[in-house]
Amino acid sequence: MTQAEIKALFTQMTLAEKIGQLTQLPGHFYSNDGEITGPIAELGISEEIVHQCGSTLGISGAAEVMRVQKEYLAKSRLKIPLLFMADVVHGYRTIFPIPLAMGASWNLELAQESARVAAAEADVAGVHVTFAPMVDLVRDPRWGRVMESTGEDSYLNEMFAQAMVRGFQGEHLESGRVAACVKHFAAYGAAEAGRDYNTVDMSRLMLRNQYLPAYKAAIDAGVKLIMTSFNTVEGVPATVNRWLLRDLLRKEWHFEGTVISDYTSLAEVVNHGLASDLKDVAELGLNAGLDIEMSSPSYVKYLAQLVDAGKVRLADIDEAVMRVLTLKNELGLFENPYRGANVELESKLHFSAEHQAVALAQAEESLVLLKNESNILPLSKEKKVILIGPKATARDHIGAWCWKGDKRETPTIEEALLPYFPNMKTVEATTMDEDIGIADAVAQAKDVDVIILAIGEKRSFSGEARSKADITLTDMQLRLITALKQLNKPMIALVMNGRPLDLHGVIEHVDALMVCWHAGTQAAKAIAKTLMGMSVPSGKLSMTFPHSVGQIPVYYNALNTGRPLKNFAPVVGYSEDYLSKYLDIPNAPRYPFGFGLSYTTFAYSDITLSKAAFSKGESITASLTVTNTGNFAGKEVVQLYIRDCVASVSRPVKELKGFQKIFLAVGESKELHFTINEEMLRYYHADESFSSDAGDFTLFIGTSSDDDARKIDFSLV
Amino acid sequence: MTQAEIKALFTQMTLAEKIGQLTQLPGHFYSNDGEITGPIAELGISEEIVHQCGSTLGISGAAEVMRVQKEYLAKSRLKIPLLFMADVVHGYRTIFPIPLAMGASWNLELAQESARVAAAEADVAGVHVTFAPMVDLVRDPRWGRVMESTGEDSYLNEMFAQAMVRGFQGEHLESGRVAACVKHFAAYGAAEAGRDYNTVDMSRLMLRNQYLPAYKAAIDAGVKLIMTSFNTVEGVPATVNRWLLRDLLRKEWHFEGTVISDYTSLAEVVNHGLASDLKDVAELGLNAGLDIEMSSPSYVKYLAQLVDAGKVRLADIDEAVMRVLTLKNELGLFENPYRGANVELESKLHFSAEHQAVALAQAEESLVLLKNESNILPLSKEKKVILIGPKATARDHIGAWCWKGDKRETPTIEEALLPYFPNMKTVEATTMDEDIGIADAVAQAKDVDVIILAIGEKRSFSGEARSKADITLTDMQLRLITALKQLNKPMIALVMNGRPLDLHGVIEHVDALMVCWHAGTQAAKAIAKTLMGMSVPSGKLSMTFPHSVGQIPVYYNALNTGRPLKNFAPVVGYSEDYLSKYLDIPNAPRYPFGFGLSYTTFAYSDITLSKAAFSKGESITASLTVTNTGNFAGKEVVQLYIRDCVASVSRPVKELKGFQKIFLAVGESKELHFTINEEMLRYYHADESFSSDAGDFTLFIGTSSDDDARKIDFSLV
Repeated sequence: MTQAEIKALFTQMTLAEKIGQLTQLPGHFYSNDGEITGPIAELGISEEIVHQCGSTLGISGAAEVMRVQKEYLAKSRLKIPLLFMADVVHGYRTIFPIPLAMGASWNLELAQESARVAAAEADVAGVHVTFAPMVDLVRDPRWGRVMESTGEDSYLNEMFAQAMVRGFQGEHLESGRVAACVKHFAAYGAAEAGRDYNTVDMSRLMLRNQYLPAYKAAIDAGVKLIMTSFNTVEGVPATVNRWLLRDLLRKEWHFEGTVISDYTSLAEVVNHGLASDLKDVAELGLNAGLDIEMSSPSYVKYLAQLVDAGKVRLADIDEAVMRVLTLKNELGLFENPYRGANVELESKLHFSAEHQAVALAQAEESLVLLKNESNILPLSKEKKVILIGPKATARDHIGAWCWKGDKRETPTIEEALLPYFPNMKTVEATTMDEDIGIADAVAQAKDVDVIILAIGEKRSFSGEARSKADITLTDMQLRLITALKQLNKPMIALVMNGRPLDLHGVIEHVDALMVCWHAGTQAAKAIAKTLMGMSVPSGKLSMTFPHSVGQIPVYYNALNTGRPLKNFAPVVGYSEDYLSKYLDIPNAPRYPFGFGLSYTTFAYSDITLSKAAFSKGESITASLTVTNTGNFAGKEVVQLYIRDCVASVSRPVKELKGFQKIFLAVGESKELHFTINEEMLRYYHADESFSSDAGDFTLFIGTSSDDDARKIDFSLV
Repeated sequence: MTQAEIKALFTQMTLAEKIGQLTQLPGHFYSNDGEITGPIAELGISEEIVHQCGSTLGISGAAEVMRVQKEYLAKSRLKIPLLFMADVVHGYRTIFPIPLAMGASWNLELAQESARVAAAEADVAGVHVTFAPMVDLVRDPRWGRVMESTGEDSYLNEMFAQAMVRGFQGEHLESGRVAACVKHFAAYGAAEAGRDYNTVDMSRLMLRNQYLPAYKAAIDAGVKLIMTSFNTVEGVPATVNRWLLRDLLRKEWHFEGTVISDYTSLAEVVNHGLASDLKDVAELGLNAGLDIEMSSPSYVKYLAQLVDAGKVRLADIDEAVMRVLTLKNELGLFENPYRGANVELESKLHFSAEHQAVALAQAEESLVLLKNESNILPLSKEKKVILIGPKATARDHIGAWCWKGDKRETPTIEEALLPYFPNMKTVEATTMDEDIGIADAVAQAKDVDVIILAIGEKRSFSGEARSKADITLTDMQLRLITALKQLNKPMIALVMNGRPLDLHGVIEHVDALMVCWHAGTQAAKAIAKTLMGMSVPSGKLSMTFPHSVGQIPVYYNALNTGRPLKNFAPVVGYSEDYLSKYLDIPNAPRYPFGFGLSYTTFAYSDITLSKAAFSKGESITASLTVTNTGNFAGKEVVQLYIRDCVASVSRPVKELKGFQKIFLAVGESKELHFTINEEMLRYYHADESFSSDAGDFTLFIGTSSDDDARKIDFSLV
């Protein structure tokens, strides 16, 4: 439709029809096929209203979508098509690694490709909008939804946010793509005590410098929708936070897309204590700038009354409605309300070999090797191995948030390893919490060369509303390891997990440990290939693995404090007793952000800078050579960090500002160049202005965030 | 001196002499007697400057103070006396319970009295200023300095702050009193991850409503000094935070006293990354409004240069100097530079019987009984008991921060119990980490009636720079309990601690558990009296005991969230799966704020309200009757909480707004009245205005923060 045609349509709409466009009902109002999260409501609205509501969530499948759309349009006066939204987070039928694992791949092209594949599968199933990417910055592994984030760093999250938006949306929502909805705005990842839905509280400065940039990056990449979060920001629930939704999003960031609440998060404002009923909630929501209310009936029940009472402006409703109509038009729904939905293509595209190949590549690059004593990995086929542990025969590698993924079509590690080791024995030995044969496992392992442990978390241990206060492996798994340790055999731990774990009781007993996450449809195959050396690990943690839960939050880009334990430069005097530390654990985490081993080794030359000082408008280039000095061709993630030495507010000890994932054949060298410009040095000041300060900076290029071996100073003049 | 005389003196001062008044040197510059915290500096300044500096810390003892003062004045051109400051936190020679234990007494009169006694002992030892009270709000038991705070509640902290200021300072710094210095401004208690000196970050709203009120209360009570904290506030170290020191403290709060840094905290601004050297630091400090720099030489080295360069205003220096001179004058030092110091009175007052009696009363009221199955306590003298554990013969009940306390004059629990049980056996069984006789302890306990466990933390486990990531008892102590449990004998645990603990491994195995803190000089006597029923426990936790470290932070006055697990009132729909919770632990802490048992029982009648609605300027009265229905005379802390049901920002589920600690004889009843007025309902809004909202409130009166049995609604109209 042309803009004029949309406006003409708009002028025909009654107030009730307009308000309908601002309401999204769960799929079960239209279909019995939907599986949805959160409280399922008895909303108490009429069937007429149901058929005025403009969007739904959780319905998919070409045939069902077409049936629902047809029925809906038949009852619709103005024939405005229903918009179908869904949680396509890390794949639709072909399931990719959980986003936290994707983050560990540091491979933006693959992330974009995986989003493209997910969009293609969702599109033919009739889905128009996906509630992804989730770009919440996360520092607390207790929180169950860390699995859905790409990690703790705002820059890395920005890059992934943009890659995924491009992958989902393509250039202009062309065929095979879906509209993306960045979430959860804002700062949902900072839930206090890692308990999902809990209060978020931080300074405006922290919000600006750390938590907000990834949402902004998605908007800069053209994301069509943004979802408000469940939490409060500065005491006001994000869903009715006028500062967030009007001042920041619209006025400062110039976002022109659609703002949608999270599931019933508008109605939950009553629980937050900012309103006593849904009528007040509707007033707060619309006035704050919320366009679409998801799954609760405040808008449809009360907006009309509120207009009459002069409590909300019709102009604000009109503006919100125009955004929804514009989105529908951008998707081409007025021309074809059945956009994408195609039963024939579903069977062709869903879980296709091509899609599985992308999932395999993504899974391979997501695995993070944390330990490999005496290069026990990769394994030789000649070894006699046994596979032990509750994850040996598990099929839940698809992880949480994979609505249409079917774990029955996900191979087990046993299945993936048997082709390499036809005589391999497999013993589950324990469930998560029960001994179902530890003694037997020990007995059977007596005559093998190597023990492969398949351990970790069930997929149900992480995800929405799945926070854990204890982030070690289950006691029974630790007991299994202790029992096997007595055999003094080489042990390789494959850890399947949805969050950073406290690895006590594992890491010190094993010779090798690979973090395998919930790596999707092709997880087992990727793991097997990597064990055998047919794939070389190249993942790097995108979220710190803490020493223990008592160290949380621990993250690499912390402030230095006045009494830092590491690199303490005494200004006056010095006393080791009075530095920032614990009595019982180190300050350093178990494994830092950016860390991951390879089967090969990489040598870094010293950094050279094109010049030591530059001014605004100029840039400088940092160069170095990286050489593969080991025996395997492989990929390395070369990371650039910068420290702002003196600033108007305390700045992090270092911040990721660039990275390159490069492939090097055995013996190969590459010269890498990183450009540093003034824009990279900007930050939010106490007065919320965004600018750089002239002065000294330190640049680090290395293999992880704790690699301080190569650093060089430069100045902005 | 009259104000005119001070001004006349002031006009004679050179700039160097003025700057000297703004510098505090550690005691070892004048004496070899000082024990001081933090980096001990080689400041690189001349002896002349040393004798221009206006104050010192950590020197005490009448003879030494008089010697130092005499020598100092001999070298001083204008004969401005040296000011002696010191950390008299919970007693000088007579040591009171650690402040966290005092907080648990909920007895403001005793706190004031203990501060009076501490002041009296310090005054005769020549101390003029104490670096107390510490009023930092604390929610993280990992932080070692929770021992120095009265707890997690801003109202309770306000009350204690004022009581202690009054106790230290008296009406007008009369004889026997010292000037108080409230600390640590601001929000030092919110160190991230509970690691001392770590970054603090929170919203302005949180700062205003929770963290700032106790400092303000001390100022309202007339405190003479305030100390800046080590941490950043909104990215800027508190010591150079102009918003805190000028806008808030001076302009908004009208504080006219002296602002002093913490130990080298001004110089540490270099480590925070806001300055590259001490010269820049001096500029930041003075311009921000810091009067006295403690223990670092930025001011004495660079302020004069900065005046010349026009970077700091002479008028600002003059203002700061006048504050220091005014403080000295208020203390009467110009009339008598040896104020208070009196060798004869030292031997009379220090550790006097009268003072010990105050310490005993304070210790008794600080003990918190958490469990008492089958009323096993109090104990009968007829029982055959054994005392087991590493704290049985320990003398470190004085806890951290008791500079002149001598643990050698602190009785052990064994010594305190032997008069009641002359045949009692005592077995240490373990140190904190070593088995030195668990098997023997088990053997010896075989024929007793009751086992008394003396367990807990060493005093060195808490205090400054003593954070712990693990807050359970040491493994060896837990092993001791497990070993003794096999005897199936009644067990009573006396836990000596400097922080809330995770009581797993203890609480489930014992019949009674009393939190004894580090309760000071008279700790053992108070514990013994209480065990025997000669004193009835009346303490209530002033800081939550978490379920485990993975639950931190957990505190009673949290926000409700949109999906609360407790009392969830579904607005639309309901799903237990999607509430704010953990998979592996409950949301409720092990023991909540305000909780503590007695040997007797108290019955509460329903609350009545004088009227259900009132307007600004009016007040209403809540009344109820409390009856001692048990068999012991005892004290109860009756607690009043209020919830603001609907507000412009999300408000806590309840907030302490009043309490009364009452004594009831057996069978006695008392009618209690609490006044509720509009001022109690005010809070800081998003725009930082402080006001109440008309609307509905719920009032709770009960025996702890989780006691919801008696509640009643009222309205402000």
